[in-house]
Amino acid sequence: MAINKLGSQTLLFLNRPHILGTGSVVGQKEGKGPMGKTFDLVLEEDAFGEKTWERAESKMLREAINLSIQKAGKKEDQIDAILSGDLLNQLMSAVFSARNFKVPFLGMYGACSTMTESMIMGSVLADGGYADHVVAAASSHYSTAERQFRLPLEHGNQRPPSSQWTVTGSGSVVIGKGNVTSLCCTHGTIGKIVDPGITDAHQMGAAMAPAALDTISTHLKDTGRSPDYYDLILTGDLGKIGSQILVDLASKQGLSLAGVHNDCGVMIYDDEQDAHSGGSGCGCSASIFAGHIYKEMVEGRLKKVLLISTGALLTTISSQQGDSIPGIAHAVAIEAETM
Amino acid sequence: MAINKLGSQTLLFLNRPHILGTGSVVGQKEGKGPMGKTFDLVLEEDAFGEKTWERAESKMLREAINLSIQKAGKKEDQIDAILSGDLLNQLMSAVFSARNFKVPFLGMYGACSTMTESMIMGSVLADGGYADHVVAAASSHYSTAERQFRLPLEHGNQRPPSSQWTVTGSGSVVIGKGNVTSLCCTHGTIGKIVDPGITDAHQMGAAMAPAALDTISTHLKDTGRSPDYYDLILTGDLGKIGSQILVDLASKQGLSLAGVHNDCGVMIYDDEQDAHSGGSGCGCSASIFAGHIYKEMVEGRLKKVLLISTGALLTTISSQQGDSIPGIAHAVAIEAETM
Repeated sequence: MAINKLGSQTLLFLNRPHILGTGSVVGQKEGKGPMGKTFDLVLEEDAFGEKTWERAESKMLREAINLSIQKAGKKEDQIDAILSGDLLNQLMSAVFSARNFKVPFLGMYGACSTMTESMIMGSVLADGGYADHVVAAASSHYSTAERQFRLPLEHGNQRPPSSQWTVTGSGSVVIGKGNVTSLCCTHGTIGKIVDPGITDAHQMGAAMAPAALDTISTHLKDTGRSPDYYDLILTGDLGKIGSQILVDLASKQGLSLAGVHNDCGVMIYDDEQDAHSGGSGCGCSASIFAGHIYKEMVEGRLKKVLLISTGALLTTISSQQGDSIPGIAHAVAIEAETM
Repeated sequence: MAINKLGSQTLLFLNRPHILGTGSVVGQKEGKGPMGKTFDLVLEEDAFGEKTWERAESKMLREAINLSIQKAGKKEDQIDAILSGDLLNQLMSAVFSARNFKVPFLGMYGACSTMTESMIMGSVLADGGYADHVVAAASSHYSTAERQFRLPLEHGNQRPPSSQWTVTGSGSVVIGKGNVTSLCCTHGTIGKIVDPGITDAHQMGAAMAPAALDTISTHLKDTGRSPDYYDLILTGDLGKIGSQILVDLASKQGLSLAGVHNDCGVMIYDDEQDAHSGGSGCGCSASIFAGHIYKEMVEGRLKKVLLISTGALLTTISSQQGDSIPGIAHAVAIEAETM
């Protein structure tokens, strides 16, 4: 048996790779939301001084990576790898941001689950002694995602109440050896694809909730933990509708998540911000974790967090060909080390 | 210092994860090429009985994964993770093939370097004791890539002599504990992005050759090896033009690759097959390694191979916005264990 594997799907990080620093950058709308003050940088305008939305997203990701490296007290040449991804075709934002660093690059894709996929694989590299410090990062941008996945912004098309708003945001985490903070990645649970058969691209919360539940319940079973072990079980971007579905489905399995669960997509916007079911996009859980959650953990208000970024693995082509939306969710346990 | 890291960019797999089995599936054209008899399955028609090219590619990848698991003597529930990717937007082929397996899924993207990225990260999971057996796999399909990246096939547009032909093919490798074969993954060198500033999407070999050289020379420096340590230094899909550029650039650095280097893109088609500079696509190095190279190693004709899949990290949007093509290359050393 693999010595660092627990149960069926959970990786055990016995060397406790530390989170040494984070960086978060968000757009104007996100800056005006309830989490606005917790991000490192709020853009004055979402084009970030660039000629195209795609270049703005790439710059936003680069800035988050730079901030995380600075805050970790490291220099670029001390970073052994950047693990990163985004929603754009061929990971355009991640690629063009990584081009600015003379650092080995590993492209990761799990739709909006990309942040925890990157954190898990980054923790594996650090925990296994394959790297001293790595960057795990992800981004999304409302204006790049809308025109790629849906319609040109200029159409001003109506959005159904179940739709989610792609977060303009990026988040980056430096994982490795050191004691800048007491926060460690202790476990990673790699998710399976779960496809509930939903074909409506405006019901992404419903498409992802069963995958989130599968990963959460597998993680708890693999680790022998109950939900109340954690101070917070935080899903990525199920939104209001998907979160309710998750809690309901969990309850049917005898798993009570109601008191301990929250969702980054629910947290990031106010009801008045017209985001309907909530936020989505790789940058949603990336920026909320790198911003608000990280601060709460560093300041001791949260000690044990299970972060489960959730991904809807659809493409415009798969939707046009009538395929349903496969869901996936990867979980990483972050715990404050008791000194 | 990280104990399993050698030099600046190379990971050391001291527990020598074994390659337990491979699977390769290719299209008609590839079946008629010089490597035709070395693949496990040659399609009778490239739609593979499916209604769309995308579904055909996904099925082709699924079949390669299934073949590799069977040949490794394993069952699906013994596989801890599938690491896989392809060229389609949002990794459509990898996602929809992984949906058929009840196995944790990690989406990988490095354009045509995806196969070695998956093999490196798969080797890390197996070597580090995070998994017993993993699948590393990749695919591409001429007809899905052409219509996504270039023009509809029905246009019958002319191709310049420097262009490459996207391979219709998939390859899969099972990595883990066991002694089905004597082949081990011993080192992985994660590549940096190197962008020589080329903007012509029909010069992909030229765009990728500097990245290939950077990874090869870094690997040799990190390991203290010279090129003749290897029986074969095999790049992914530089094609004829890119291969010549690689050998020339290496020679200028005092590195002689001429006798030991070959390229999967050069090997896969005959001159008569109208593929111009050669083959490309994630499936090129994936199917050549899983087919021909694997057989040569199992039968003892090759003992030490450095496989460097090469990726051109362009997107249609980055090209339209005038950006150049970033190159990347990841290397994995595969060696026959001396008994």
